[in-house]
Amino acid sequence: MKRIRLVVAYDGTQYHGWQIQPGAVTIEAVLNEALTQLMREPIQVIGASRTDSGVHARGNVAVFDTESQMPPDKIGMALNQRLPEDIRVQVSEEVPSDWHPRKCTCIKTYEYRILNRRINMPMERLYSHFCYYKLDVDRMQAAANMLAGEHDFKSFCSVRTQVTDTVRTVYKIEVTRNDDDIITIRVTGNGFLYNMVRIIAGTLMAVGTGHIQAEDMPSILEAKDRRAAGPTAPARGLTLIEMKYEL
Amino acid sequence: MKRIRLVVAYDGTQYHGWQIQPGAVTIEAVLNEALTQLMREPIQVIGASRTDSGVHARGNVAVFDTESQMPPDKIGMALNQRLPEDIRVQVSEEVPSDWHPRKCTCIKTYEYRILNRRINMPMERLYSHFCYYKLDVDRMQAAANMLAGEHDFKSFCSVRTQVTDTVRTVYKIEVTRNDDDIITIRVTGNGFLYNMVRIIAGTLMAVGTGHIQAEDMPSILEAKDRRAAGPTAPARGLTLIEMKYEL
Repeated sequence: MKRIRLVVAYDGTQYHGWQIQPGAVTIEAVLNEALTQLMREPIQVIGASRTDSGVHARGNVAVFDTESQMPPDKIGMALNQRLPEDIRVQVSEEVPSDWHPRKCTCIKTYEYRILNRRINMPMERLYSHFCYYKLDVDRMQAAANMLAGEHDFKSFCSVRTQVTDTVRTVYKIEVTRNDDDIITIRVTGNGFLYNMVRIIAGTLMAVGTGHIQAEDMPSILEAKDRRAAGPTAPARGLTLIEMKYEL
Repeated sequence: MKRIRLVVAYDGTQYHGWQIQPGAVTIEAVLNEALTQLMREPIQVIGASRTDSGVHARGNVAVFDTESQMPPDKIGMALNQRLPEDIRVQVSEEVPSDWHPRKCTCIKTYEYRILNRRINMPMERLYSHFCYYKLDVDRMQAAANMLAGEHDFKSFCSVRTQVTDTVRTVYKIEVTRNDDDIITIRVTGNGFLYNMVRIIAGTLMAVGTGHIQAEDMPSILEAKDRRAAGPTAPARGLTLIEMKYEL
C-alpha cells in the first residue's frame, strides 16, 4: 500500500466546491471517479482544503492510498487524461503512509483578485471580482498591515462554523495593482477560518472605498463579532495558490 | 441621424466569431439584437475586424447609425445591461457620419498568449494556447525581428482568402515571458491578412522549439507560399488588443 500526494489546480467556476455532496458536481467527486477508473480500485481522496463553491486553486493538495504498481510520478499525467480540462494535477508523488494533509503544519497562500475599472473586461470575469468604485490601494495595504500577526480572527469568520479556537497567524498581506487594473490581495498564513480570506478581502475593499477606515482594524478584531467586519467578497475572485508543508 | 462608434471587448470562447452567419451565435448578431432592442429601431453594426471563431478582443470597433436621442456616451452602459457578461462595450461615442471602421487608417495590436509549462493551468486554458515543449524566447524574438517591416506576407496568409495585395507593414513584434510561464507575442501593424497573426505565432513557436531556424524567416517570406511558414496557432490564444485610429 502506498500513499500518494497530489497537487491539484482547478477552475472552480463549474463546481460546487471541493467537498462531496449529494446531487452536486464537486472537485473531490470528479477526482475520486477518475482515480477509481485509473487505478481500478475504489479510491477516496483526502483533501487539504475544502474550497467553497466557485473558488479556484493552483495548488490544493490531496492524498489517497493505492495498491497499484503505477510509478507515483506518472499518476498525475495518466489522471489528467481522464479529467475535464478545468482540473489538472500538477504533481503526484509518494509520501509516508501516515502523512495527512490536514494534520501537518503548512503555510497557505491565497490570492484575491479584484478588477477595478469602470467597465468589466470579459476575459477577467471568471477569475476576479469586478469593482466599479475606485479603490485606494495604499489605504488597503495600511489596513492589511494591521491584520498581519497572531490575532483572534473571529470577526473575520463566517458564523456558519463549529470552530471554537479562532486564533490564527497571518504572516503577510500584500495589496498590489497591476497595469491591467487588477488589484491582488495576497495572504499568507498558518491556517484560515471559514470564509476568512473572503471577509478580509471584503473588508479591505470597504477600506479602499473609504467606507471603513484603516485605523478601525484593531477595533474590528477586538469586537470578535462577524458583524464588525466588512462583507464576504464573492468566491470567483479567490484562488488557493499554494500549500507549503514542512515535509 | 448620428453615427456611433463602439469599442467592444469579448471573450470569444462561446462564439462563432464576429461575423453574422446563419445558425451560429456571433458577436455581431448579439450586438445587433441588443442594439435593436435598446434603440427601438433596426440596427446593424459595421465591424472593424471580423475576428475568427474563438478569438477574443479587448478593443474591437464597430459603428452604427441611429435616430435615437440617447446621449452617445450613455449607450455603452445601457447596452451592457442587455448583453451577456462575455461581451462588454468599453466606449461609446459619436463620430462623423462618413466615418467607416474599415476604410480609415489604423494601427492594430494583437497579442498571442502561450502557456509554456509542463502541465496546463486551468485558469489560463481559455485565453492561451498550451505548449508542453520548452520554447526559446530569445530565438523567437530574433525571428520576430526579421518579420518586422514592410513585406509581402503571402506565406503568412491563409489560402482561404480573396485578397490579392498581400503586402503589409508590421511595426513591431515583441516576445516576452512572464513569471507565470505565459509567453506573449505582441504584434503591431497597419493591417493583417487572414490568419496572419496566428500563422506568425505558429511559426514563432516552431522557431522556439527549434523546428524552424530564425534565419529562415527571409526565405519563408520570399517563398510567398503558405506551406513555407509554420502551422496556424489555435484561436483561443489570440486577442485583438487595440485599434488606434487617426481620428
